[in-house]
Order: sequence, then C-alpha cells, then structure tokens
Amino acid sequence: MNIMIDSAVAMPDVQSSVDTRHIAIERVGVRGVRHPMLIAAAQGPSLPTVGNWELTVSLPAHEKGTHMSRFVALLEQHRQTPMTPALFCDMAVSMLVLLNSDKGDIAASFPYFMTKVAPVSGVASLMDYEIKWTARAQVAPFAAAGLAGSPDVKAVGQTEFELSVLVPVTSLCPCSKAISQYGAHNQRSHITVNAVFADPALVDIDTLIRGIEQQASCELWGLLKRGDEKYVTERAYENPKFVEDLVRDVAVQLQNVAGVQRFRVEAENFESIHNHSAYAVVEG
Amino acid sequence: MNIMIDSAVAMPDVQSSVDTRHIAIERVGVRGVRHPMLIAAAQGPSLPTVGNWELTVSLPAHEKGTHMSRFVALLEQHRQTPMTPALFCDMAVSMLVLLNSDKGDIAASFPYFMTKVAPVSGVASLMDYEIKWTARAQVAPFAAAGLAGSPDVKAVGQTEFELSVLVPVTSLCPCSKAISQYGAHNQRSHITVNAVFADPALVDIDTLIRGIEQQASCELWGLLKRGDEKYVTERAYENPKFVEDLVRDVAVQLQNVAGVQRFRVEAENFESIHNHSAYAVVEG
Amino acid sequence: MNIMIDSAVAMPDVQSSVDTRHIAIERVGVRGVRHPMLIAAAQGPSLPTVGNWELTVSLPAHEKGTHMSRFVALLEQHRQTPMTPALFCDMAVSMLVLLNSDKGDIAASFPYFMTKVAPVSGVASLMDYEIKWTARAQVAPFAAAGLAGSPDVKAVGQTEFELSVLVPVTSLCPCSKAISQYGAHNQRSHITVNAVFADPALVDIDTLIRGIEQQASCELWGLLKRGDEKYVTERAYENPKFVEDLVRDVAVQLQNVAGVQRFRVEAENFESIHNHSAYAVVEG
Amino acid sequence: MNIMIDSAVAMPDVQSSVDTRHIAIERVGVRGVRHPMLIAAAQGPSLPTVGNWELTVSLPAHEKGTHMSRFVALLEQHRQTPMTPALFCDMAVSMLVLLNSDKGDIAASFPYFMTKVAPVSGVASLMDYEIKWTARAQVAPFAAAGLAGSPDVKAVGQTEFELSVLVPVTSLCPCSKAISQYGAHNQRSHITVNAVFADPALVDIDTLIRGIEQQASCELWGLLKRGDEKYVTERAYENPKFVEDLVRDVAVQLQNVAGVQRFRVEAENFESIHNHSAYAVVEG
Repeated sequence: MNIMIDSAVAMPDVQSSVDTRHIAIERVGVRGVRHPMLIAAAQGPSLPTVGNWELTVSLPAHEKGTHMSRFVALLEQHRQTPMTPALFCDMAVSMLVLLNSDKGDIAASFPYFMTKVAPVSGVASLMDYEIKWTARAQVAPFAAAGLAGSPDVKAVGQTEFELSVLVPVTSLCPCSKAISQYGAHNQRSHITVNAVFADPALVDIDTLIRGIEQQASCELWGLLKRGDEKYVTERAYENPKFVEDLVRDVAVQLQNVAGVQRFRVEAENFESIHNHSAYAVVEG
Repeated sequence: MNIMIDSAVAMPDVQSSVDTRHIAIERVGVRGVRHPMLIAAAQGPSLPTVGNWELTVSLPAHEKGTHMSRFVALLEQHRQTPMTPALFCDMAVSMLVLLNSDKGDIAASFPYFMTKVAPVSGVASLMDYEIKWTARAQVAPFAAAGLAGSPDVKAVGQTEFELSVLVPVTSLCPCSKAISQYGAHNQRSHITVNAVFADPALVDIDTLIRGIEQQASCELWGLLKRGDEKYVTERAYENPKFVEDLVRDVAVQLQNVAGVQRFRVEAENFESIHNHSAYAVVEG
Repeated sequence: MNIMIDSAVAMPDVQSSVDTRHIAIERVGVRGVRHPMLIAAAQGPSLPTVGNWELTVSLPAHEKGTHMSRFVALLEQHRQTPMTPALFCDMAVSMLVLLNSDKGDIAASFPYFMTKVAPVSGVASLMDYEIKWTARAQVAPFAAAGLAGSPDVKAVGQTEFELSVLVPVTSLCPCSKAISQYGAHNQRSHITVNAVFADPALVDIDTLIRGIEQQASCELWGLLKRGDEKYVTERAYENPKFVEDLVRDVAVQLQNVAGVQRFRVEAENFESIHNHSAYAVVEG
Repeated sequence: MNIMIDSAVAMPDVQSSVDTRHIAIERVGVRGVRHPMLIAAAQGPSLPTVGNWELTVSLPAHEKGTHMSRFVALLEQHRQTPMTPALFCDMAVSMLVLLNSDKGDIAASFPYFMTKVAPVSGVASLMDYEIKWTARAQVAPFAAAGLAGSPDVKAVGQTEFELSVLVPVTSLCPCSKAISQYGAHNQRSHITVNAVFADPALVDIDTLIRGIEQQASCELWGLLKRGDEKYVTERAYENPKFVEDLVRDVAVQLQNVAGVQRFRVEAENFESIHNHSAYAVVEG
C-alpha cells in the first residue's frame, strides 16, 4: 500500500493512497447522523425539527477512501439555515466540491408538523408526518476539480429533488361495509408518496399533504371533541376505500400537481381484523 | 490490579481478579442473542421458533467480571430441548451453578403460533403472538458454591416464572358508536399480559391466549373468507370496548386463572382516528 | 349501562357512565404522541426538539372512561413553553386537575444535543443523546376535586422527577488487551442512567452527561480530525473497561451527584467480536 | 359502482367490480405476515425459522380489487414444505395462477443459522444472519387465465430469484491503526449483499456467507474461549479495512460466484468513535 504522508500533521493519510482493485464505489459517506434541522415556512417562523441524515458521494476506482469528517463539517455549517428544498439541493452541490466528487446524495428524514383545525369544534392541534428529502447532485468531473470555492458551482450542478411523505389516515373497508348489516372494519393506514421534482422551487409540502389526506376514507387529527368524533366516524363510513382505492385516488390527484416528474404511491392498511397489513403500490 | 494467570492456557484471567470498588452488580450477562428454540406442545410435535435471549446473573462486589462465554455455552446445550416453563426454570438454576452465582434471570422472547378456525367458513390458519418467558432463579449462596455438578441443585433453587404474551385484537369505540348515526371507529389493539406463576407446571399458554381474545371487541384470524368478514365486522360492532374495558375485562378473567400469583394487563389501541395510541394498564 | 347525556351537545357521554366491575385502573391515557418540545437552556436560547409523549392518569373503579382529548389539549397548551424539569412537574400536576384524577405520569422521550469540542483539533460539533423525562404527580383526592383552576394546586401536589439519559461511548475490552500481542477489541456501548430527583430544580443534564462520558474507555464526538482520531484510539487503549467496569464507575460517580435519590445504571456493549451484546446493570 | 353478487353466499363481491380510473396497480397484496418457514438443507434436517412475508401481484386497470385471503391460503399450503430457492420461485408462479395475475413477487425475511467452529478452541456454536428471499414471477397474460390448475404452468413462468443476506462482521480502521502508537478503533459492521440469480438452483447460501465473512477484518462467532479471543483480536489488527475496502473486497469475491447476474454490496460500520455509521455501496 502506498500511503501518503500529510506533512502538516506528519501523519499518514491512508484514505488518499491509491487503490488497485479497479472498483468504483457508487456511494460512500455517513449514515444515521442525528442533527437538528430548521424547515423554512412559506410564512411565519421556521419549523425546528431533528433530522436523521445520510450524506454520500461516489468514489473513483483509484481512490482508496473518502474523508468522512467533511460530511459532518458540512452538516455543522448548515445547522442554523432555514432549509428549503432548493437550499437542500445547493447543499448537495457544496458537498461535491468539499469531497471533490462528481456525484452525491444528501437525504434527511424528519418529523414534520402541520396545524389542523378539527372539522366541527374548530379546535386547533398539531398533526405529525414523517418526511424525507433527498437531493441527488451531479457535476461535470472537471467542474468539481476546478471550481472548489467558486460561487459559480451551482450553475454547473444538476440536481434532482425527491420528496417522500408518510401521511397516516383512516381507511374503511368497502367489502366489510357491503356485506355487513352494520359497521365496517376500519384502521389506521399509511400512505407514502415519493415524488421527484425537476425544480425544487415547485415543492409545496403542505398542499401535497392536504391533497393526499383528502383521498382517504377520512383524515386524522391530533385533537377531536365529541362532535368531531361523530363527524369522522360517519365520514369514513360514507367513504369506504380499499388499499387499491387509496393508491389509485392519490395517483390521480398527483397527476395534477405542478412540477412532479414521476411518483410512487404506497398504502399500507394495518388491518383491524388481521395481524398483518394490506399493501398496494402504484408508480406514475 | 491483581490479575490471575490461568495456567492451562498461560493467559491472564482479568475477569477473575479482585474488584475494590465495593459495588455489587445486580445483573451481568449477554443480551440480544438470537438462537433457535423448541417449544414443547401439550400434544403433538414441538413448535420450532427463534428466541431473542437475555441471560444474566448477579456478581458480588469483590469479583471483577463474569464469564460471558458460559452463557452462550448454556444456550448451545439446550438447543434441541423441547422447552417447557418448568425446564426453562431448571435451565436458569443450571446457569447459577455454571456461573457460580446465587441469583440470575433467563428471558427469551419469541413468536408463537396457534392454529385457529375461522368463525363461519371453518378454514384453518395460523395466528402469531409475541411471547416472552422469564425465569428468575435464586439459590442459597453456599449451595451454588458447593453443588456444582450436583444433581440435587434443583432442590435448593427457588425460581419464579413470568409469562408475557402480546395478543393482537380488534377494539371498537363505544363512544364513536353511541354518538354516530352509522359506523364506529375500530382498530388493531395490542393486549399484553404479564403473569407470574409460582408453579411453572400450571402455565397453559393456549388457554390463556384464548381467554384474552374473548375479552376484545373481536379476536383476529390469519385467514377469513367473506362470510367470516361479515361475522367479525358485526361481532365487533355489537361488542364495543374502550381501552379501559379491555384491561378490566382481561383482569377479571385473569383472576380466575389457576396459578397466577400477580399480573399486569396493558392495552394499546392504535386509534384509527388519531396518529397516536390510547393506552391503559391494570395490575392485580 | 347507565349513559349520561351531555346537554350542551345532546350526545351521550359514555365515558362518564358508572362502571360496576370494581377494578381501578392504574394508568390510562395517550401514548406515542409525537409533539414538538422546547428545552430551556441554563443560558442562551432554548433547544427545540421533538418529543414522544405518554400522558396517563389513574382512574377510580367506578368511572368507566377517561377523557382522552384533554391530554392532547394539555400538550397543545405547553407547545411554546421552554421546558425545565420543574415546569414539567407542574404540567403533570395540571394534568391531574384537568383530568380530575389524583395520580398521573407524564413522560417524554426526545433527542438532545450538546456542543462538544474535539480533544486535539478543537473543532466543535454536536453530539446527540436520547433523553427521557418522567414526572409522577400525586395530589390528595380532595385537592384534585376542589382546586380545579386554583393557583394553589401546586402547593398540594407531590411530584417525583426521573431523568433517563442514554449516553453512547466507546468501550475497550481489558481481557482482549491483556491476552493479545497487539490491538484490543472495542465497540460502541450505550450507558443508560435513570436517576430520580426529589427536587427537579437540582437536575443538571449537561453535567450529568459529561460525568458519565468520563467513565467510559473513551467518549464520542460527532466530528474528529486525524489528530483527534489518534487521541481517541490511544485513550481507549490506555483505558480498558469491561461492561461491569462501566456500570460500577458510573455508579461511583452518581453517588456524588447532588439531588439524586436513587439510580439505575445500565451498560450494553455491542460487542465487535460477537453478534450479541454484553450487558450489566447496577442500582443504587 | 357495479357490484357483482356471488351467488353461492349471496353476498356482494365488491373486489370483482369494474374500476374506471384507468390506473393499473404495480403490486397489491399482503405484508408483514409472520409465518413459520422450513429451509431445506443441502444435507441433514431442514432448518425451521420464522418468516416475515410479503406477497403481491399486479392488478389490471379495470379490476377494482384483489382477493387478499388467497395470499394467506397459499402460505398455509406451503407451511410444511422444506423450502429451496427453486420451490420458492414455483410458489410465486402458483400465486399468479391463484390470483389470476400475470406478475407478482413473494418475499420472505427470516433469521438463518450456521454452525461455526471457533478458530483456536474448536468449540461449536451457532451464528445468526438475516436473510431475505425474493421471487419475481411473470407469466404471459393468456397463460395465467388459461392454465389455472395446469401442471404446465411452471413451464411458461419466468422467474427471477434475489438473495439478500446481512452478515455481521468486525471492521478495524486502517487510518486509526496507521496514526496511533497502539490500538485501533474497531466495531461491528453489517455487510449486506443482494444477489440476483438467473437459476435458483445455483444459490448456495452457506458458501456465499463464508465468502463474505472472509473479506472482513475478522468474522464473528457466537462462542469464543480466551484463546479464540486472542486470535480474533490479533487477526482484526493485522487486517484493517475501511468501509470502502469491505464493499470492494466483497464485490471482487462476488464476481466469481457462479450464477450471480448482478449484485449490490452495502457495508455499514457502527463506528466505535462516533454515534453514527460509515456507509458504502457498490453495484456490479
């Protein structure tokens, strides 16, 4: 092994030695980094949350190792930034410069909150969703090498933004309703939408979530008074949906969301009459 | 540090050196050991499953460390044994001898299966439950030291057996039913019973599970035909239960189970109208 | 069943009917509620995080059900409060008044962050810890009934505060070091301390965490440069600890923390040479 | 909605009605079904384990719903079958016939065990691995419709088999070793290989696992005596590997495994000096 010596600290720099196995690495970096995150709001103060981060870059066949500490340094730099999908993409491009790589991804999963108003009583409460943002950046190889520190680096970067959101809802079984004299089994369901946007400026999380919730048998709220509980019970009964209906109805709705290039809709019903789930997925 | 030398292998035996901090250790051992397990059946072949094991013993203040490999050796010895609660308790006593300790616990969590017959169609299918067995053994200090290898060690051991079983069921909300013109929200619920038995020979898992299931709005099955689905839908609607009702009704039923010294009943309803659970616990 | 009618909304109030099973419920309430949380800092701005909440109260034998929506309403009221252990205890007392109960617990688990400075390079980065706060409140039965809305309610409440903190560290095996010509197996370990405080004003999370970290073979940092990596490698090698040593050394250190009434120290080593953990627990 | 009536039970068959949204469903079925599983051994008795199953089929745009109970019925039929990759693929083709679909997947995740002999003492113990099998079946549309019950159905099916195996190992950091006077940080790592086989008869799990283990700094065992611990400590120190080395060395080794059409190798090091992981992935 040909180990380089970093003269400044007089320590061997094993990562920078030459690799002879001729195998390029798709992605290498850090995973499971828990770090605070600020989500910029369309209006009003930013939403503070806690992200679970993964930052990775491609590594050419001849390089032995990446420099892991730089990923965490990048995270530290962005700790106070109210983050938008567009800034998240910029961060991914900065990562390529910092790691001297031509391809890389940043992903962060975090709990997200929206204030919802109960349908009858009008009481307000928070509802929580699990969100994941992924930015996939790519620059021309010469650019990463030549533009370190350049303010123009964004111009040469090409980035894809993917939004994943898990929306918990109620589903009520049409078959159970149709065959039973009274009642119908219902349960909590998870609808997960992955949507790829060409332009991160077009992402509107709150509108997307509200659109998904309207496709369920009924949406959920954190806080419901008795009048609200009557409403959601009757609303779900009037509006039965199979797991197949959930994914189809969300897909129809997504076809009209501006900026979505392609999507994947999954629904999982935690069946109240079984100890397993019903599951469906549609891609579009 | 006063390190003993094990002459057979001429290696220092750090664990056997003397500790001077004057702090006895409640329990020390291995955790998260995944190992196959055979559960003896009342009749017919044993049920093979996979256990997640924890084996721990107490350590006196003057001993520096326990001998971790002996726990795993004990597990290996019992791999083929069709296990009953009584044999599980014996295994815990053997552990005390092997580790030269006077107190210790063995716990194993494992998926368990029962064949159930659908209520209308009569089709048979498996239903899965999460079970945990815990044996808490204790011997008089002189006994552990003096009886290594003795067949009489069981006679001096005093062991408590705890059964924990998680039974998934349906719950249907009495309030939702009472206030709504039609329908009622329902959901999957987990009823967890922890029951301590003085005599492990009195444990009857299958009867206990069936007793718990009968307290729910409706029990679950793996496989239901359309006629069964109508039955379970109507049965749940006729039989609404709050999370409070679930724990109370199971508690009433447990008061009549032979051999149960004390118990704890928990119920968690994965509310279909919220993104959180309703939860209750009763002890008796 | 004797169902009361709530005249305001002309809906049956099933929860308020009388129960005849003669079984008091230890605790009933909500669990798994994800809600934002602000942790007050000794100095500087509060730390925003996301809590996983459980709020429960005792229910007398004659009451059929509790009022679940009030727990979530309480959470909403405290969303913006920079929370201290003392305010958390006050919140638990408020819950008793709101739910008309004489005993109850609030627990919240949340990721917590501290800025740490690397040992050689001095670079700063965040380190994350999993914290759980539990407040166990109790008022004399007459008090809960009589003092609804009274500013004096705190005076009659008696509350216990428990802090649980999971501190990830490095452990390096003394036996492996002693018997090997070079190297020693080491791994990430989790030290979990549960400490009960009589006076919540005495809780000092940061000092407690720093004290725990100093008992490990080496503490962890989010960001380490090469010089730091040399330091932590050599530091761990010079400082080998069994899982038994971790719990004993933390216990010794806890004996000197002001305000701690009783504690429990657990350590779990995710052994690098096995696919299971070594585990120990001490109570004091 | 045009609901068909099933004359045998005089109940509406909602699933069989016509859908007009013009959206085909990629996959629909059941998920999270826990069911016993028997893995056929090359020689000796089959290995009993517990699978977590997902069974899904494609659904044409004009069909409203699939028939969920048939998936579980299929599982029940195969409960006693000692399963090979080839039989698992046959089961997926049977599922297409049963569900009247032309495409579908069966996936099962399960703990798997191999007996290993410690390197110095020679003591035998089990080592556990997490395995996932996926069979992706496809038949010509006419075939599924016409061949129900036909023994020739396998002839027209085209099936891909994917093996995923998670192998826990030790990794020891080359940089830490090179820059430190003594010691080197090491930790448990997970190497996950996904390999697609054209011919399921060529799958040899045990050989694949052994090949992966040999690429680590050191492999793991369930039970090690003192002499073994010395061996594994020194072996890891002599054999340092970055996360990048792990994926490259496993990739090189996979290039020579018979029958592998394409693969993906991931490694995650649960860094003993950080609270996050180093991660790398290679595809080939």
